[in-house]
Amino acid sequence: MRKIVLAVGISLDGYIARPDGAVDFLFMSKDFSMEDFFKTIDTEIMGRKTYEVSLKLGGTFGSIPTYVYSNSLPPGERSGVIFTRESPARLVEQIRQKKGKNIWLMGGGQMAREFLKADLIDELHLGVVPVLIGAGIPLFPGGFPERSFALMENKSYSKGLISLKYRRARSRGPRD
Amino acid sequence: MRKIVLAVGISLDGYIARPDGAVDFLFMSKDFSMEDFFKTIDTEIMGRKTYEVSLKLGGTFGSIPTYVYSNSLPPGERSGVIFTRESPARLVEQIRQKKGKNIWLMGGGQMAREFLKADLIDELHLGVVPVLIGAGIPLFPGGFPERSFALMENKSYSKGLISLKYRRARSRGPRD
Repeated sequence: MRKIVLAVGISLDGYIARPDGAVDFLFMSKDFSMEDFFKTIDTEIMGRKTYEVSLKLGGTFGSIPTYVYSNSLPPGERSGVIFTRESPARLVEQIRQKKGKNIWLMGGGQMAREFLKADLIDELHLGVVPVLIGAGIPLFPGGFPERSFALMENKSYSKGLISLKYRRARSRGPRD
Repeated sequence: MRKIVLAVGISLDGYIARPDGAVDFLFMSKDFSMEDFFKTIDTEIMGRKTYEVSLKLGGTFGSIPTYVYSNSLPPGERSGVIFTRESPARLVEQIRQKKGKNIWLMGGGQMAREFLKADLIDELHLGVVPVLIGAGIPLFPGGFPERSFALMENKSYSKGLISLKYRRARSRGPRD
């Protein structure tokens, strides 16, 4: 089964971006690499804001199928991405009809909430930088039922970056 | 200098308690101990809600000086604790007039915000449990300037508990 992996960088107080979308507080450590992760995914899903920030930062699209959630932009394929308004459940079902690798859920906020509500997140990969920014777009904005996870990996990198990997623990009881 | 150490358990989405104050989602791992930490502190500061939850859970006070922030209860010493409305800066100045060990800041929310605004937090010790609870009292509610930290320790314990220790990094620039 192709897993849905929410993988993002966050501040220590849980923000994926500043209020205006800026992600200048995030950094990569020279001893940290996402190459192994990239080998495990072949599809990405993001929100419209993350898409626009990626474009601004010089990101290009089209090398792998990329779905962008937007209520304001019309659905359909344009500029190397597929704009969508499908429910997470339906979109994931569609993507999973084809065999492939894992699906990278890239972003947080409202999109993470909808995926958590539908219990569609199989793994969490969090890169946590050691700064409290005090305001921004939260990775986990609340408004979803309690979800338990199991820790798969916890590593420290230079400049205080930590990398946490969790997988969804769905068997611990009715509340999970 | 007696350090101020904010040390608490939190959910993976950054809550110190459920909306009603319950902390049933927190747990201790059998391979994790706070004994070494307790040896380093001799004073504690908490908010009124944390105080009341501690009382409900059978906590007793009086063995070490305990300050409880409350706007609703009159200031003064009663039942083994000292109720206070002092500014964090003034309270910390008072406590530091006596020599002693570190000061345990126990709690989050509004109190953590006020201490972060005054830049009085020297260390963060976070015990993070692997569950998203989706709603509650946030450790870091925002409303304070950006604060950078340096990672001191990152350890994993049984049942997926992780223990993170950071110290305030005050020398990286004017924004810090």
